[in-house]
Amino acid sequence: MYKKLFIPGPVEVKKDVLEKMATPMIGHRSKEASELQRSISNKLRKMFYTKEEILLSTTSGSGLMEGAIRSCTAKRAAVFSIGAFGDRWYDMAKHNNVQADLYKAEWGKAININELDRALSTGRYDLVCVTHNETSTGVMNPVDEISQTVKKYPEVVWCLDTVSSMGGTKIEVDKLGVDICLTSSQKAIGLPPGIAACSFSEKAIERAKKVPFRGYYLDLLSLYEYIQKKDYQYPSTPSLSHMFAMDYQLDKILEEGLENRYNRHLDMANYVREWAKKHFELFAEEKYLSNTLTNIKNTRNISVADLNKELGKRGFQISNGYGSLKEKTFRIAHMAECTLDDIKELLDNINDILNL
Amino acid sequence: MYKKLFIPGPVEVKKDVLEKMATPMIGHRSKEASELQRSISNKLRKMFYTKEEILLSTTSGSGLMEGAIRSCTAKRAAVFSIGAFGDRWYDMAKHNNVQADLYKAEWGKAININELDRALSTGRYDLVCVTHNETSTGVMNPVDEISQTVKKYPEVVWCLDTVSSMGGTKIEVDKLGVDICLTSSQKAIGLPPGIAACSFSEKAIERAKKVPFRGYYLDLLSLYEYIQKKDYQYPSTPSLSHMFAMDYQLDKILEEGLENRYNRHLDMANYVREWAKKHFELFAEEKYLSNTLTNIKNTRNISVADLNKELGKRGFQISNGYGSLKEKTFRIAHMAECTLDDIKELLDNINDILNL
Repeated sequence: MYKKLFIPGPVEVKKDVLEKMATPMIGHRSKEASELQRSISNKLRKMFYTKEEILLSTTSGSGLMEGAIRSCTAKRAAVFSIGAFGDRWYDMAKHNNVQADLYKAEWGKAININELDRALSTGRYDLVCVTHNETSTGVMNPVDEISQTVKKYPEVVWCLDTVSSMGGTKIEVDKLGVDICLTSSQKAIGLPPGIAACSFSEKAIERAKKVPFRGYYLDLLSLYEYIQKKDYQYPSTPSLSHMFAMDYQLDKILEEGLENRYNRHLDMANYVREWAKKHFELFAEEKYLSNTLTNIKNTRNISVADLNKELGKRGFQISNGYGSLKEKTFRIAHMAECTLDDIKELLDNINDILNL
Repeated sequence: MYKKLFIPGPVEVKKDVLEKMATPMIGHRSKEASELQRSISNKLRKMFYTKEEILLSTTSGSGLMEGAIRSCTAKRAAVFSIGAFGDRWYDMAKHNNVQADLYKAEWGKAININELDRALSTGRYDLVCVTHNETSTGVMNPVDEISQTVKKYPEVVWCLDTVSSMGGTKIEVDKLGVDICLTSSQKAIGLPPGIAACSFSEKAIERAKKVPFRGYYLDLLSLYEYIQKKDYQYPSTPSLSHMFAMDYQLDKILEEGLENRYNRHLDMANYVREWAKKHFELFAEEKYLSNTLTNIKNTRNISVADLNKELGKRGFQISNGYGSLKEKTFRIAHMAECTLDDIKELLDNINDILNL
């Protein structure tokens, strides 16, 4: 049975966008393929607020996370984790023999800016990894404050994971000074999973040139150099289906207007937060709540599994807590093409099931 | 304008299969997602003639090529190249600091079995990479002979690139003793690009356990372990769209019957070869001609670019030669759902354009 998804990716994808996934194939070494990717890159630059090059990768967001930390760490990486996806970045470093240290915040808290400043001031690091929006906890990190700190250390390449926030909230890449801002298709951008994108700054390019073993498929520098040389074509065959759908969906996003889109996301977030505070508690600290996902403490000790099963019968799906939080929290994503009316309908159903 | 593709991938994809790419999303941590992948793996096992586990990767075939050589070389890899894609495997080793040697055949020739035997007999290698079907040259390597040689060296993990042959010709993985047989969606299997698959033998699993730095996204062992632990779910979000389409297309392939499918490919290959020999010459040595693609020497000194432009106006697309062969050869792919009638229609048009 079809279920409307309120999980933190894959999100609900609109029918007209899904239909673009069924576009007939073209040669990936054709002029049309070059034009398709150039068009996508230009539109993504608007969403990223950047003049830098945009790279596409036929992978999940994890592929580009690994590509970023491996391609651009010459000395040592500082991974500032606020949850599961921050920890993943550190794992990737370890599995690639990239020197790195892990700085962990308590789950539900944002990054500790003083700790960030102290770490970078040691001069040990030439790259820092930060998760913008952590779906395991529902925290959205304060990028403006982080930017002020990172900018004090011009040697440091800043990688920002915006997998679950780009397209749902404003992230001004060039103004913030982010060197590699990466995201994925299946979250606030509103596409099926299978393609990821990142910006790639001059500083990142120069850094990568100093890293000897960057791998092949996920090497950001060779991706960059290839699309320069080959007029926006890729070293290996990309997912053209996702590219057709992305090109179309980005038009729709720009037609809605980026500011309107961010406001819609904030309205949904505010509505879910109010509901959550009335009936439960919020997991993340109030100052750093995510605009695309709300993580709710299960203070009523309901069975989250049963709630989701009952919602499933009614055609909705939410998420349980992440990992060990499985029954301790539940998560409602409010991202991509989801509307306030969709959210109200979902919460009315939860109210009805739980007799709230 | 829409063009029917006779290029060595992406291939023409049937409308009903394309429509499956537009299936609405499901959660990738749901029971449905587990069932979807289990179903795909079971069907791929039939096509691979294997009892081993099948891994899927949201990448092009290059992603799994890199994963194979990096995950399973503990000592040193011997890369036996017969063209551009064999060379690529060696590049991947170098970019990952994997110790490797490159053995190159002259373009148009198959692997030198004596050289393979000599190389492996040195005991220097614990992994060997072989391209089954090389689209840059039109050669299909003799896997039976290779198998007899590789089997003499039980320490050696055998990686076979069947990106452009699996589904178009019989490759009996277990009987041949291939440890990692990898393929991609956009060739003889008849799907859009964006997903790759490989078999993964017990020997490969045990080998990978001895390799310390296997990376993350392309690490075959962690993929394997994750799907065992998590009931056929993936560490990161896979391309569900491709999985829906693959599950459907594999049913269609099995309905056609694998032997029928191989015979259809052989019939098309024979027809193109006869035509090529009548009007041009074949690039590859006669004994090792590919069943899925024919590479034709431009003995008439035609402009391949002009021919393709004229074909384009009539709704067809073939390939020029690979790399430096650009105008020296042209390539006609006859794979996936292409029929003998499609091939006849194409060649009639070429005859007409070139006044043959």
